[in-house]
Amino acid sequence: MLRGMFRLEAQVEFLLTCDRLKAVTRTTLLHSGERAENSAEHSWHLALMALTLGEYALPGTNLSRVVELLILHDLVEVHAGDVHFDQSEAGQEQQARREAEAAAWLFGQLPPDQRDIFGAAWQEFEARQSPEARFARALHTLLPMLLTWGPGAVGSAAHPELTFQRVQALKQPALAEFPELWELVRQTAARAVTEGIMPG
Amino acid sequence: MLRGMFRLEAQVEFLLTCDRLKAVTRTTLLHSGERAENSAEHSWHLALMALTLGEYALPGTNLSRVVELLILHDLVEVHAGDVHFDQSEAGQEQQARREAEAAAWLFGQLPPDQRDIFGAAWQEFEARQSPEARFARALHTLLPMLLTWGPGAVGSAAHPELTFQRVQALKQPALAEFPELWELVRQTAARAVTEGIMPG
Ligand SMILES: [Ca+2]
Repeated sequence: MLRGMFRLEAQVEFLLTCDRLKAVTRTTLLHSGERAENSAEHSWHLALMALTLGEYALPGTNLSRVVELLILHDLVEVHAGDVHFDQSEAGQEQQARREAEAAAWLFGQLPPDQRDIFGAAWQEFEARQSPEARFARALHTLLPMLLTWGPGAVGSAAHPELTFQRVQALKQPALAEFPELWELVRQTAARAVTEGIMPG
Repeated sequence: MLRGMFRLEAQVEFLLTCDRLKAVTRTTLLHSGERAENSAEHSWHLALMALTLGEYALPGTNLSRVVELLILHDLVEVHAGDVHFDQSEAGQEQQARREAEAAAWLFGQLPPDQRDIFGAAWQEFEARQSPEARFARALHTLLPMLLTWGPGAVGSAAHPELTFQRVQALKQPALAEFPELWELVRQTAARAVTEGIMPG
């Protein structure tokens, strides 16, 4: 047996557990509107977005790190699910606790050195402090908007409460520090109202 | 209007076109066996695999580049589809031509500087020459095997021609230069035969 086969087997178990992310459904529909997207393909799309829109990050942002954060950011959902409808303080605290437990369980399948590295990346994304986490969060906030109200999109019939004002208020905190992306939000919302796919 | 909004609009069109990769179906099933995976979630899983198994790459391999290649490697399928059953020389040539046309069309939606960067990454993966492309290709060859015959997997009832010998012959060219990964292939195949999910 070669050096490290036990280590490699743990890594394989982790990767197969992560396969379940393909079965975690999000509320956002595909651009075609045909079905809800899942968290695995969503994570891929965000990583592609980071490669495509990197020039709009703050100067000095490590884009490879942004890609890593986005690939990992939803992994805890293989245990906790993509549930964040309860926006109350108690609800958010409970969700944060569940996600921390899920992270300990999932990353605990890895060898200890990698458990710490993956856990730190997930916490960095959640903390929204580093330039990399802030840009990742901005893309994460922008993409559902483009899928739902961008060019060729069909709008969100299931969420009539998402009006022009409401959408901009929701998007502003993550996006305002990135001027081109924030302007894109404003133009996209304005166009969606004109096209009749977003309540004005 | 801010600097570069026209450029950003082209990038958004590209990203929304790429959403179609979520509707391109592969022949590999999820680990659960419940459905076929699509090329977008497959690309995410490969990128995660590169972050997890990077220590088995050749010394000096740029793992961030491996991740990039894997995020981009299937994009041409939004036009050409995941079709490569015809293994004849003529069939492979025709597929290569179709994919090159698809790449020109898809990456041509980007601003010219990015068209060239993305196109070069796709060609690097296809050429299988750089250490990064070779490691990306090894992971690409390994993952379907783990999903289909790894721990907890259900095998491939639809492909009884995939025997112990045949699987190893298919996997050997991409994996033999990575000793731990190649040993994993051999152990996985041997265990699958023992478990009765792979014909011996
Ligand atoms: Ca989430």
